[in-house]
Amino acid sequence: MTFDLILANVRRSAPLVHCITNYVTVNDCANALLACGASPIMADDIGEAADITQICTALCINIGTLNKNTIASMFAAAQRAQELYHPVLLDPVGAGASALRTSTAQKLVEKIDFSVIRGNISEIKALAAGGGSTKGVDANALDAVNDENLDDAVAFIKEYAAKTGAVAAVTGAIDIVADSQHAYVIRNGHRAMSRITGTGCMLSACMAAFIGANSAHILDAAAAAVCAFGICGEIGVRRMSKEDGNAALRGYIIDALCNLSGETLCEEAKYEIR
Amino acid sequence: MTFDLILANVRRSAPLVHCITNYVTVNDCANALLACGASPIMADDIGEAADITQICTALCINIGTLNKNTIASMFAAAQRAQELYHPVLLDPVGAGASALRTSTAQKLVEKIDFSVIRGNISEIKALAAGGGSTKGVDANALDAVNDENLDDAVAFIKEYAAKTGAVAAVTGAIDIVADSQHAYVIRNGHRAMSRITGTGCMLSACMAAFIGANSAHILDAAAAAVCAFGICGEIGVRRMSKEDGNAALRGYIIDALCNLSGETLCEEAKYEIR
Amino acid sequence: MTFDLILANVRRSAPLVHCITNYVTVNDCANALLACGASPIMADDIGEAADITQICTALCINIGTLNKNTIASMFAAAQRAQELYHPVLLDPVGAGASALRTSTAQKLVEKIDFSVIRGNISEIKALAAGGGSTKGVDANALDAVNDENLDDAVAFIKEYAAKTGAVAAVTGAIDIVADSQHAYVIRNGHRAMSRITGTGCMLSACMAAFIGANSAHILDAAAAAVCAFGICGEIGVRRMSKEDGNAALRGYIIDALCNLSGETLCEEAKYEIR
Repeated sequence: MTFDLILANVRRSAPLVHCITNYVTVNDCANALLACGASPIMADDIGEAADITQICTALCINIGTLNKNTIASMFAAAQRAQELYHPVLLDPVGAGASALRTSTAQKLVEKIDFSVIRGNISEIKALAAGGGSTKGVDANALDAVNDENLDDAVAFIKEYAAKTGAVAAVTGAIDIVADSQHAYVIRNGHRAMSRITGTGCMLSACMAAFIGANSAHILDAAAAAVCAFGICGEIGVRRMSKEDGNAALRGYIIDALCNLSGETLCEEAKYEIR
Repeated sequence: MTFDLILANVRRSAPLVHCITNYVTVNDCANALLACGASPIMADDIGEAADITQICTALCINIGTLNKNTIASMFAAAQRAQELYHPVLLDPVGAGASALRTSTAQKLVEKIDFSVIRGNISEIKALAAGGGSTKGVDANALDAVNDENLDDAVAFIKEYAAKTGAVAAVTGAIDIVADSQHAYVIRNGHRAMSRITGTGCMLSACMAAFIGANSAHILDAAAAAVCAFGICGEIGVRRMSKEDGNAALRGYIIDALCNLSGETLCEEAKYEIR
Repeated sequence: MTFDLILANVRRSAPLVHCITNYVTVNDCANALLACGASPIMADDIGEAADITQICTALCINIGTLNKNTIASMFAAAQRAQELYHPVLLDPVGAGASALRTSTAQKLVEKIDFSVIRGNISEIKALAAGGGSTKGVDANALDAVNDENLDDAVAFIKEYAAKTGAVAAVTGAIDIVADSQHAYVIRNGHRAMSRITGTGCMLSACMAAFIGANSAHILDAAAAAVCAFGICGEIGVRRMSKEDGNAALRGYIIDALCNLSGETLCEEAKYEIR
């Protein structure tokens, strides 16, 4: 499906997206969802997590600032979403940084049929290997995908997608979004985005909206979200003045999402399919 | 009481407002309170909730992202506030979206004499009816107050105010702020405000400051807060450039609050009393 | 050590800073850390708090919005950090405002050898005295450090530093950063910064990065962080237009941190050593 249609479906259907997400970037996730044309609802108590999922179109689970209460809610909401065939996305923030994060993400992947698993390469390696060398919540430089190791990275990510049955979306300098057969290799975005907290979280939230509104086209919708967010990063960086820094860029990216047209999305998306 | 005096009282007395509120929009609530001239303190652990209320002028309870721990703190703080005759405001975010939210809000309304209950029309209907059709945390389009159903809406809201003993502040395209006898029908604001997360939460927090600093004039103070926030939304929208979106508007609204004069508030407030 | 070298060490080593901090200003703390050149990770569950500390360079404990779960994590993380000789900073937000905050901060100070304790004068007085008259999370006007009581304030803060073995960093209109022997008396910053939520929290987070990257020079690094943040406040205020308010200033300060050079830091730092 073409990216402009995917975006139009988000705007037309205004999917309600249930986020169980970290409290660091939750406000940005909510505003990014609204900027896309979706509607956010955050709810993480076990007393309502499944009920809230039930009235939503998609569920985004982000394990940053997880705790024992919200972990229980993640499983309850994801199971309900699965029963209802709602798309569910996992963002394994910081998998590899602590045993709790790695094991929680792995158990989620075992129990839940995620539509998409989206993280940086270190997180996905930690999940795939049951170990890893994540540097906090940012990717380890040694893991970074580049033109030299791209073939291997694509093969690894397709394999991980095959193993989990999910689309795997691995973002970094080069982004790879793949199912077991096809990989979008995407070259949108800008390195300045890594100096803003929450670019990954916002992308995950928006991706949940994109797949919620296009549930028969998960791979294309996930790739469209990555391109859209990367393009908005580029637009944001172009808008920066000499005095601007990461705080300004954060706002410019959300503003660009708000104003992004399907035409711009199609014209500026830079990807190949492998 | 005139709106400029109400605002001047907020600025002069700098009320300390205790917020037990959701983690999605809490930073915006704090900055909006500071912009008004008030001072925020957020505290939601049962070990201190009542103590913090005790040193404050007003209490704002917002049930977005409620959980079993914070619910207990809401009751404890509200009971202490009531003993001290502090104004207490309830924002029943998402009432109608889950049984937990609806029942928590209803129990709060039963046990506590709120000074103001402020929500969108779907939330207030859910509270009044013990049911409802809230779409997440945004109002259901079918419920929206418009010129056709305005008389009925005013009557419904006055009745709800009479039943609860609180001023009911119902915001949307047309805002209605009423006690059992009088209703302010307010036409400030801009539809773009609904694409920002937290406009309702920020309004509730600021309204708590307004009623805290004007506790003998709850109805007028609540109406003044609605007008002030709507006017700031209008100022914010006028300030937007072509590249701006909801992130920029969020900041412009808080900035406008920071710079709002009593004169502008009086001149640009658009309301009638029914 | 000169301030430009201190800043260069932060930028070069990109310290990973573990923050157990309040949910009001956590996003600003993360973006401020990234603006400095550091990397944030927030984690407050007892199941991972110590593990996360272990992979970090420094730990920042901020007791705003503390709760019984996060208090346990504060102790666990701080004890692990201490075993590993990582610098640990305490920001006793609202000490004096509730018994829970005062006693938690005091117990932390008893059990943990903090590298720095950073707060406003009311908070530090509450900690030192076991009582106090904090107005919420802002300093009480009666406590404010000014030119008349400066000698007494310096003596008090050196004494508190001697008693606790920590560098004490007390910020306000005049900032004092002292160990038992030497006090930096700093006159950077602008009063408009007090109308933004989280300036203190952001400073604490950045200070943790500064001391993490300069662990042999805690006093100088803490003073450099205070000067840096104050200078960024001044730059931010100079950038404000007539329509700007506290929301704009918040972003300008983080942007200024992002662009701050060692040269500017050295040239614009205004301090004397007593």
